[in-house]
Amino acid sequence: MFARLDTPGKQDGDRLMHQDQTEFTFSTKGQGLYEITRDAQAFVAASGIALGQLTAFCRHTSASLVIQENADPDVQRDLLAFFRRLVPECDPLFVHTLEGPDDMPAHVKSALTQTSITIPISNGRLLLGTWQGLYLFEHRVAPHARKIVLHVVGE
Amino acid sequence: MFARLDTPGKQDGDRLMHQDQTEFTFSTKGQGLYEITRDAQAFVAASGIALGQLTAFCRHTSASLVIQENADPDVQRDLLAFFRRLVPECDPLFVHTLEGPDDMPAHVKSALTQTSITIPISNGRLLLGTWQGLYLFEHRVAPHARKIVLHVVGE
Amino acid sequence: MFARLDTPGKQDGDRLMHQDQTEFTFSTKGQGLYEITRDAQAFVAASGIALGQLTAFCRHTSASLVIQENADPDVQRDLLAFFRRLVPECDPLFVHTLEGPDDMPAHVKSALTQTSITIPISNGRLLLGTWQGLYLFEHRVAPHARKIVLHVVGE
Repeated sequence: MFARLDTPGKQDGDRLMHQDQTEFTFSTKGQGLYEITRDAQAFVAASGIALGQLTAFCRHTSASLVIQENADPDVQRDLLAFFRRLVPECDPLFVHTLEGPDDMPAHVKSALTQTSITIPISNGRLLLGTWQGLYLFEHRVAPHARKIVLHVVGE
Repeated sequence: MFARLDTPGKQDGDRLMHQDQTEFTFSTKGQGLYEITRDAQAFVAASGIALGQLTAFCRHTSASLVIQENADPDVQRDLLAFFRRLVPECDPLFVHTLEGPDDMPAHVKSALTQTSITIPISNGRLLLGTWQGLYLFEHRVAPHARKIVLHVVGE
Repeated sequence: MFARLDTPGKQDGDRLMHQDQTEFTFSTKGQGLYEITRDAQAFVAASGIALGQLTAFCRHTSASLVIQENADPDVQRDLLAFFRRLVPECDPLFVHTLEGPDDMPAHVKSALTQTSITIPISNGRLLLGTWQGLYLFEHRVAPHARKIVLHVVGE
């Protein structure tokens, strides 16, 4: 629980905060939620960080990140359906249509969800709740290659 | 890629970045905003960190976090009313209904707000604006015990 | 303000994690998206941090942050139009009206977007995607002076 690093008289072997960063590409098959919890956890394990934080960052404006339930797949289906209705294609409101009818809705959905999410780490594990999974949220209809940066800081 | 910190030559008196983590459980009384600014500030004070950052993380997918005005309680009332209308219960769009009519709306509302929020710290205080408060946003109708992780990094 | 960690016993070649924090005020001209990528990048460069993370934090509840496309200005126009329609002024739902018809919508829009965003840094550069820009999202109609805190951690 309590993890303060004390520093006077520090000796070799004392743990010090460090960081690690990676980028990976996820190939989506079009609109939907793609779980990347395992990728994130594997990176945390490889970093050797026991106590700290992971930040995931999506390098796009037509895909985003979200933490959602990983139990009943209907939750993801309903989430997708809700966002599709909230930000419909071919909305006459939109002027930016040259990249396709799903592009501007994708930007809006990205703004409504997250581009970066930070998750605490304890005992080398992401401190996600029992039903939480980390998802890449693809908003475009066509398949895309999406770049996700993972960054850990801790000790 | 890998950037572990080594410290040969380090001396007493050098300030070093350190971190601290805690989890606490907040018992909600159903849908609403519950301010946790004081809990977060108390944790920052206990950590002894003067300059750094606090990250709050909600370990649930039917409750979330939000920073909102802490002055006029009507703001919280209106925010709640807006989200209730935007993501109504008993929406025929939703297939995931086995956990109750308020469950799927709770997941959507969580996706529309935050699971993690990072706040800078200066002089041992959260650098919130004058009117900003940190809130746990309970989306379920029934009371729930919600786990929040707080993590500080700084010096 | 400036908090670089100096390390008197330090030897060439030792890298240590350190942090730096600043606050700047951005004067908006009313509702709209204002790009602050360059301010953020300049701060990262000044910090000397090559590998790490930047967190931007907006100290307001009627303005927020968002990462969006920085190429076609129509994207920003459409985003603004969408949020204006989603959270209209003079909505009879709202009780909190004493600060003007655009105030409560501003709080809702802030809740629907971000108050804090964390961006990874590599080789001294923000690891934004090709089309990503960091924006201050002003939700009030009148011009406002907005305080943004930038905080970097890294080495």
